[in-house]
Amino acid sequence: MSERIPVTVLGATGVVGQRFVRRLAGHPRFRLAHLAASEKSAGRRYREACDWRLPGEPWAGCGDFEVLPVADARLATPVVFSALDAAAARTVEPELAHAGAAVFSNASAFRMEEDVPLLVPEVDPESLALLDRQRRERGWRGAIVCNPNCTATILALALAPLHRAFGVEALLVSTLQAASGAGHPGVASLDLLGNVVPHIRGEEEKVAEEIGKLLGTLEGERLVPAAFPVSAACHRVPVVDGHTEAVSVKLGGDPPPAAVRAVLEAFRGEPQRLRLPSAPSRPLRVHDAPDRPQPRLDVDEEAGMVVHVGRLRPCAVLGTKLTLAGHNAERGAAGASLLNAELALARGRLPGIPRG
Amino acid sequence: MSERIPVTVLGATGVVGQRFVRRLAGHPRFRLAHLAASEKSAGRRYREACDWRLPGEPWAGCGDFEVLPVADARLATPVVFSALDAAAARTVEPELAHAGAAVFSNASAFRMEEDVPLLVPEVDPESLALLDRQRRERGWRGAIVCNPNCTATILALALAPLHRAFGVEALLVSTLQAASGAGHPGVASLDLLGNVVPHIRGEEEKVAEEIGKLLGTLEGERLVPAAFPVSAACHRVPVVDGHTEAVSVKLGGDPPPAAVRAVLEAFRGEPQRLRLPSAPSRPLRVHDAPDRPQPRLDVDEEAGMVVHVGRLRPCAVLGTKLTLAGHNAERGAAGASLLNAELALARGRLPGIPRG
Amino acid sequence: MSERIPVTVLGATGVVGQRFVRRLAGHPRFRLAHLAASEKSAGRRYREACDWRLPGEPWAGCGDFEVLPVADARLATPVVFSALDAAAARTVEPELAHAGAAVFSNASAFRMEEDVPLLVPEVDPESLALLDRQRRERGWRGAIVCNPNCTATILALALAPLHRAFGVEALLVSTLQAASGAGHPGVASLDLLGNVVPHIRGEEEKVAEEIGKLLGTLEGERLVPAAFPVSAACHRVPVVDGHTEAVSVKLGGDPPPAAVRAVLEAFRGEPQRLRLPSAPSRPLRVHDAPDRPQPRLDVDEEAGMVVHVGRLRPCAVLGTKLTLAGHNAERGAAGASLLNAELALARGRLPGIPRG
Amino acid sequence: MSERIPVTVLGATGVVGQRFVRRLAGHPRFRLAHLAASEKSAGRRYREACDWRLPGEPWAGCGDFEVLPVADARLATPVVFSALDAAAARTVEPELAHAGAAVFSNASAFRMEEDVPLLVPEVDPESLALLDRQRRERGWRGAIVCNPNCTATILALALAPLHRAFGVEALLVSTLQAASGAGHPGVASLDLLGNVVPHIRGEEEKVAEEIGKLLGTLEGERLVPAAFPVSAACHRVPVVDGHTEAVSVKLGGDPPPAAVRAVLEAFRGEPQRLRLPSAPSRPLRVHDAPDRPQPRLDVDEEAGMVVHVGRLRPCAVLGTKLTLAGHNAERGAAGASLLNAELALARGRLPGIPRG
Repeated sequence: MSERIPVTVLGATGVVGQRFVRRLAGHPRFRLAHLAASEKSAGRRYREACDWRLPGEPWAGCGDFEVLPVADARLATPVVFSALDAAAARTVEPELAHAGAAVFSNASAFRMEEDVPLLVPEVDPESLALLDRQRRERGWRGAIVCNPNCTATILALALAPLHRAFGVEALLVSTLQAASGAGHPGVASLDLLGNVVPHIRGEEEKVAEEIGKLLGTLEGERLVPAAFPVSAACHRVPVVDGHTEAVSVKLGGDPPPAAVRAVLEAFRGEPQRLRLPSAPSRPLRVHDAPDRPQPRLDVDEEAGMVVHVGRLRPCAVLGTKLTLAGHNAERGAAGASLLNAELALARGRLPGIPRG
Repeated sequence: MSERIPVTVLGATGVVGQRFVRRLAGHPRFRLAHLAASEKSAGRRYREACDWRLPGEPWAGCGDFEVLPVADARLATPVVFSALDAAAARTVEPELAHAGAAVFSNASAFRMEEDVPLLVPEVDPESLALLDRQRRERGWRGAIVCNPNCTATILALALAPLHRAFGVEALLVSTLQAASGAGHPGVASLDLLGNVVPHIRGEEEKVAEEIGKLLGTLEGERLVPAAFPVSAACHRVPVVDGHTEAVSVKLGGDPPPAAVRAVLEAFRGEPQRLRLPSAPSRPLRVHDAPDRPQPRLDVDEEAGMVVHVGRLRPCAVLGTKLTLAGHNAERGAAGASLLNAELALARGRLPGIPRG
Repeated sequence: MSERIPVTVLGATGVVGQRFVRRLAGHPRFRLAHLAASEKSAGRRYREACDWRLPGEPWAGCGDFEVLPVADARLATPVVFSALDAAAARTVEPELAHAGAAVFSNASAFRMEEDVPLLVPEVDPESLALLDRQRRERGWRGAIVCNPNCTATILALALAPLHRAFGVEALLVSTLQAASGAGHPGVASLDLLGNVVPHIRGEEEKVAEEIGKLLGTLEGERLVPAAFPVSAACHRVPVVDGHTEAVSVKLGGDPPPAAVRAVLEAFRGEPQRLRLPSAPSRPLRVHDAPDRPQPRLDVDEEAGMVVHVGRLRPCAVLGTKLTLAGHNAERGAAGASLLNAELALARGRLPGIPRG
Repeated sequence: MSERIPVTVLGATGVVGQRFVRRLAGHPRFRLAHLAASEKSAGRRYREACDWRLPGEPWAGCGDFEVLPVADARLATPVVFSALDAAAARTVEPELAHAGAAVFSNASAFRMEEDVPLLVPEVDPESLALLDRQRRERGWRGAIVCNPNCTATILALALAPLHRAFGVEALLVSTLQAASGAGHPGVASLDLLGNVVPHIRGEEEKVAEEIGKLLGTLEGERLVPAAFPVSAACHRVPVVDGHTEAVSVKLGGDPPPAAVRAVLEAFRGEPQRLRLPSAPSRPLRVHDAPDRPQPRLDVDEEAGMVVHVGRLRPCAVLGTKLTLAGHNAERGAAGASLLNAELALARGRLPGIPRG
């Protein structure tokens, strides 16, 4: 194996940042070089700055790393993973891209920019072609690649093969989202214990617009969003990790459940073909048990990278119904960005790094 | 006030039965005469047979009642409230109706019978006319009146005024249902803690067929169900009391949210006009806060008899979206049956009892 | 009845402040005159400033009150209830006391001051005598009266009669405390869902020192703390309201459980004798069921003012064991302060207000 | 490596049984030969009989096993793991021991029998010597070895080194126990959501008597229980896996926390010395963070075999306080029995099997 590529994690102390660190600690192609976080953490050891909240080895063995401020020039490693909030991302990510880093970002700041790939490797790997335009128009030596919102990612993974096979004509989704999706501290326990909060700020809008971009068509260097209507209702529920999504979808030709199932089960993508290190063996697992998938039982499978599909059945209104569950903080965040970087590496899309 | 009418509660030891007892303990028109339950409770004092689980005075002051077996002849009081399970109801309720009792039942056994009113007083008070047919065809001196499934009741209360004003053309609902809806012991804590169970046996089918009957049209003594398609996805969530329902609905003429809201806010029904003892001041409360209604904060209002509406907004697929929350065990069960009996009394529909 | 006394609530937008407002909205002796809160709320209507989170009528009908800043001179009403945090209380409360208000405070700032009553009306009503010293030494026209920490209050109510009857010689308590005890936002849902946090900052120390003061002896105007050792272990658990406390206690003469029980059941205090408006009919309720008390089922009884005792049994190490549950935000906070003010009024201890 | 020893799991469909299957599926020394369960499961495939509820590969790859009835003669493999309930265990386990099997049982049926080892390998490995007496007096070719109750196991692991170093003179423990400790369905969600149940039938008694036996002294073939008083208060809390235990202990010579800590950190036992396959690298992990251990964050470490110690501090009543957390279903059940079997194998205590 060639030498490992040095990488940086921005926002390393948060819910998603910790998962980046854990995933990168033993990664075969990337080597954790720097951790960065906000002012109040910078300058301290990671073990002091970060209230580590994952099972397993505390700080993933990186407790002695010095936490750098996000403005530090050293952070422009060939690959950067960003778990910054949107406001910080808007400033920091372009500076790093300008300085030559390929930034794989979980932030929402640049997702809807026309020249930024909104990438899920099984869904729209070809969107990496936008990097040529990005580099040309922005003058960056590096790049920014975004992964979608967690809810949209889980949804896109199930819809992509259906859209290819049948065409999605309308989409309704109601979500039951986990607490970890709001970060830490996120939602107060007093608001969520034994309760449902039927609103997540900006989430329904993000789902609609990001699904459009994810299932859109690349025409040259221009991405034409998919045109079907999308309507989402998003709820926060007292679950730690794992979003559940109740989907109703109108598919072209109104295929029977068996045909839908066959398409879902057959679905494989670039990560599987390329055997990327963070790729699950298959992106979707279809369940037969009528009461699955369940977030607490299912979403940890294959390091949280599988999206679970269950309750495939006819819908009296739109034709097809199914229930999804996926790990919002892995397939929907840290694992998503990492898989994006692995795809970029395999495709030779990391600036200055040979295809590997 | 005239003398109070003696009533019986069947299934008095369960989750719904206890709420019947609590509501009846101080009722102005009904007097709790008998409590009945299954074999293993019969013959014991209520305080010994019933693991009382409601706040406030234990056993609602009825701890010294003897629990009778459900086959006891004394139970044919003029009014009977049934919290039996469907199997027991199928045998016991007709016997009591035959013996002269007006049975107000929360069980599903007879809900879809053609001559049985599926009654929500604000929604289809005219369905009490079916009792003439019931009495004539079945030869009962008494009667059976059912209230719908809890999920359908909450939904029907919000849809009824919209159906009248605009016509419902299609309905999609995703529910987040409370543990108490499954009774006690119901769902194991190991299954529900920090989890979502995306299936409730028979629930989605019940919602669809009961909504059709509730919003149907009475033609003479025949009820013609409403014809629009209904599709439901039902989930159990870690909430104690209170179902949340995310609704998408196609209304005739695609009215704007303000018009929908005006109809919901203006809605009043027979219970309000007649000032029935268990009627809420208004059946619906429309919330402005974007994160309401919430089951833990809202559903206890007015003894659990108000249905809460929030997040009224356009739906890109069906036209109108809104979120409901209501108390499954009160407006959806015990309070529902009681309000039905109050309406029947006010309308002179209790056999042998003058209108009152 | 004489005219109602105007009162102010400081910190009216928080978890405890809302409960003050709800309790005062229909109070027979006090009339809500002003609501005050921190800078960011001041100047707005209460309905805009306060995210109301209690069941029942929103803002308890006080939504149109203007929220005043805590430094406003109008706040020096004859009676002031304080739900401020300790830092704000340290500045604001003495100013109001100086200006003539009798401040009944839930804050910890002055609890351990030698001349400040740490009052639970059933436990140490005589501690109001400290107000003479307070006024004399501090030159205040008004006064400060504190209620203890919620955990200590619940504990003191059960221990006070035992201390009087037998003498407490050693005390060990392990607590399981509700989320509302930490205020809002308090503990993050991500920290508390399906979890136990075995530490609450400062809580164990407060319990030990406050129990000593509560069960101490007033010698003239000097309070001599009780001298027995106290050891506490405090845990936060995923419960909304209601602290559970597992108590082991060494009592003089090692009385058998039946003797302990007799003392607990016979316990009544000044609030019961004086029939104060917020007094429960009895301060303690002793449960027989082996699995009670439970916070969700028991602590709301009598508006949250009853402390529940169960599982009275021998302790192989200290002699006596019992389990307590009480409402941390009512008996332990808002209801506590209010009962204190009612006692002060009844005893003629409100400056410038006749005994009433 | 020598050939793997065929083993049987009794009660394979339950919460503990599933963990046995998962642990044995890839075990280096044992080979899963048979799964057995109650009548209603017998004769079906494991995938049909068992509602698999663990993350990872469903049925641990053993879905095609036929589930045998517990009375099947084939079950007398050299090693048997029992997750039966106490009543079934009382009949089945002696029959298998008589037929030559070494039964490693998680059931309570035989734990307190004088000739049955109550074994935690780091605590009382010498208790295996009781097998000689057991075989001689009972005439069994096989044997029964019990692991203690989950709560007692976690407690014993922390107390054993302290008892050796200082002598335990008195012990008080309050527990906050997880739902999985009650099996499935166990506690109803309606009882446990947002609640504490302050009683677990028989648990406090088991803790007291089992701790006495675990920390007792073997005099020849007679086990003399430790004589110090033990008092427990056991609570069920809304946690999925992981018991928390708040311990107060009187140690000989009242050692300071630093001395106690040194002993806990130095503690290693036979499993560590022998490098048994299921042994954690160290039996205890001492935490510095004031809010640790927490069940959801800590108990999964090293496959659930580590007991976590935190909050080591002085106790005003008994001298020393500390908080424990451990995995009730692994270190306290399935992992416990398996480690016992591994120790017996390493010590040559499996009938007819050479030391290995």
